[in-house]
Amino acid sequence: MSDTVTLSLEEGHELAVAAFLANGCDRRNAEAVARNMMRAEGDRCASHGLFRLPGYLASLRAGKINGKADPKLIDLAPGALKVDGDGAMAPVAHAVGHEPLVERARTQGIAALALTRVHHFSALWVEVEALCEAGLVGFAFTAYKPVVTPGGGTQALYGTNPMAFGWPRPDRNPVIFDQASSAKARGEIQIAARDGHDVPPGTGIGPDGKETTDPNAILKGAQLPFGGYKGANIAMMVELLVAGLIGEWFSFEAAENDVEDGGPPRGGEFMMAIDPARFGDADGWAEHCEAFLERFLSIPGTRLPSARRYENRGETPASGIKIPRALHDKIKQLTDG
Amino acid sequence: MSDTVTLSLEEGHELAVAAFLANGCDRRNAEAVARNMMRAEGDRCASHGLFRLPGYLASLRAGKINGKADPKLIDLAPGALKVDGDGAMAPVAHAVGHEPLVERARTQGIAALALTRVHHFSALWVEVEALCEAGLVGFAFTAYKPVVTPGGGTQALYGTNPMAFGWPRPDRNPVIFDQASSAKARGEIQIAARDGHDVPPGTGIGPDGKETTDPNAILKGAQLPFGGYKGANIAMMVELLVAGLIGEWFSFEAAENDVEDGGPPRGGEFMMAIDPARFGDADGWAEHCEAFLERFLSIPGTRLPSARRYENRGETPASGIKIPRALHDKIKQLTDG
Repeated sequence: MSDTVTLSLEEGHELAVAAFLANGCDRRNAEAVARNMMRAEGDRCASHGLFRLPGYLASLRAGKINGKADPKLIDLAPGALKVDGDGAMAPVAHAVGHEPLVERARTQGIAALALTRVHHFSALWVEVEALCEAGLVGFAFTAYKPVVTPGGGTQALYGTNPMAFGWPRPDRNPVIFDQASSAKARGEIQIAARDGHDVPPGTGIGPDGKETTDPNAILKGAQLPFGGYKGANIAMMVELLVAGLIGEWFSFEAAENDVEDGGPPRGGEFMMAIDPARFGDADGWAEHCEAFLERFLSIPGTRLPSARRYENRGETPASGIKIPRALHDKIKQLTDG
Repeated sequence: MSDTVTLSLEEGHELAVAAFLANGCDRRNAEAVARNMMRAEGDRCASHGLFRLPGYLASLRAGKINGKADPKLIDLAPGALKVDGDGAMAPVAHAVGHEPLVERARTQGIAALALTRVHHFSALWVEVEALCEAGLVGFAFTAYKPVVTPGGGTQALYGTNPMAFGWPRPDRNPVIFDQASSAKARGEIQIAARDGHDVPPGTGIGPDGKETTDPNAILKGAQLPFGGYKGANIAMMVELLVAGLIGEWFSFEAAENDVEDGGPPRGGEFMMAIDPARFGDADGWAEHCEAFLERFLSIPGTRLPSARRYENRGETPASGIKIPRALHDKIKQLTDG
């Protein structure tokens, strides 16, 4: 028997929805998160796909996540919106705030959306891509529990703190990056530990505060930010935006208050959207940017961020996706059991 | 005779103003740039202080920079402002846009300011700090001529593309970082070349596209972004914001159109300001953030970005500043000669 299971995107979606429904979600909450998850699977970003489902289910069972959340939009200022997430998984709250954010960005030129009382375990680029599809420039930030050191520090303070940025291209896929503030993804370190490989220098420090290439020591110690002090500054900026600015928990507070059920802690997300048609040349900006991107692609060795995802997206509707059989069986068991 | 000259901050300011006035500036343009420059000198950021003056003067003499610029504010949308710089040095245009940006951020929750047709050679943190002093969160971005490679690429496409971020702290100095997208400052590479030292691995590539630690080869080749692909993504974001969004030149266009007089090319700057009192907890946000910063400082080895600058700022009003005698003499010659 193969150790993977092949599913169509529709089958994957139904698998996720059924699991959510069997674990206390209403259909609206189940569908919103399954959609985000399957966007990741469809682009072969397995790390944000069905892989996350058991963690979500654990937090639903623990009562930490509200599977029947009813997030509410709050109008803070002409350019400032907030969605009180009511304990939802983040995509449920995002679905409430997305259209209002688009409308405000168009009327105000720039607008921001804060999501509070949410649990973030999802791909951030999905939300930025939705802004780009509306013709807007998008930013999104979120934090997590402390795993990354501040610059020069020897203890974790920051989450992996991803920052996503998206640039719209009329009639083309947007340019999007979605990157953690850590030098390496935590999953890569976990896989190296499982497989008994070293990780590259610069990945992390052990519990003794000293740099090491031993993944087990790093998992007990802390990860290093990408690019030294500069990446650490980005991580700090993310904390201040998603916690300090919007009145949510910093990563260290999320950890102190989390019940450690294996799912995502409560936290915040911060988004900004800008309408390029309100700045500069409303007719010419897109063409001007294409000239820049052509110049970029003319340099040997380059590849636009997100290009690989779009290639994958072209394949998975026909090929389906493969997930580990163990993951598939676990989801079935958490659904039926 | 000492090879440095010690000046009071007032003497430094007068030196700069006199040089600008003698090279085609009116008093308003001269004062605005001298103030920015002396803010840098006062914090012992010599790289953005009087060191930049000969470059500005060369561009004023070449007629590239307009020393009598009269930048105009343009209201694009409730949250979107633009200053057409009229060929000014950036601080002159910033002075026109600063108060309107503050006012819009307070009324809209978030606002943005584009500076176009400016020449940027100045410290970016000065402008972000002014937002923080008004109680706002600030972002600023600018580009330059291509010296940094895209991720995976072997030719320069991006400027050093600094990004500055500032967090306000009531009754305390704000937390500000202002960092280039390159792994190292260009000035450090130039100094290594002058002194015959190697630079660290990861700094840049030679004209052959291969990584090298030879500063002379890197100055003929290209600098690498900080943190690999992730820093390169930040550099790309900066290009898109300061050129694509606001209708100004990308770094590659700035280089193609520059007269190479030694001063800064024409370019754009993009700023965003957010009012934390309009998000989250209007009364409690500052205290909440202080708890985070205390946690940060409790970790051995950490230091807040900009802390050293503030220490220096406490000293220079009494100690004055030292500049190289050669620089002092050159400025005097460009003023009197």
